[in-house]
Amino acid sequence: MADARKLTEAEIKEALETLAGWELRDGKLGRDFEFADFVQAFGFMASCATYAEQVGHHPEWFNVYRKVRVALSTHDVGGISQRDVAMASKMNELAANFQG
Amino acid sequence: MADARKLTEAEIKEALETLAGWELRDGKLGRDFEFADFVQAFGFMASCATYAEQVGHHPEWFNVYRKVRVALSTHDVGGISQRDVAMASKMNELAANFQG
Repeated sequence: MADARKLTEAEIKEALETLAGWELRDGKLGRDFEFADFVQAFGFMASCATYAEQVGHHPEWFNVYRKVRVALSTHDVGGISQRDVAMASKMNELAANFQG
Repeated sequence: MADARKLTEAEIKEALETLAGWELRDGKLGRDFEFADFVQAFGFMASCATYAEQVGHHPEWFNVYRKVRVALSTHDVGGISQRDVAMASKMNELAANFQG
């Protein structure tokens, strides 16, 4: 897959500038999302799950009540790829549907 | 709520005998579920989410691809209550719908 190449530190840094709320955590793209309640949080997760399955790239995530903590990386390249950047961007877009 | 009382160690031990796959982890009821793929794993989570919202008691859970790690406790009592035992039991029942 053309976009499944391990990004360099410089590329990751550049990508993070376009990804509001995301940061580098233990070699993965990480972000904590917070919603009004569990229904909103899980609604967000469900919409992400549909997208994840569609693109064949899945998040690592933790949920408790209205909080969702996400970590993205690409197992096949042993690091962060453009697929994670695309997923992070999509998650920000989907989260907006469940916030405010 | 009548069932939101912190269970004693003896009560938890007794409850665990009826809960296949569950164990005590850091003062919470814990279990790792594994499914055939992400769609099955998330289907399980979605059915649990509906139930959780219905009963007003929510799990703490982590998902990566086909694995779901769950931790149950009752914040209001600072430990494990009958509500967690009921949730663990229900999760076993719901998981069966998404496994073999």
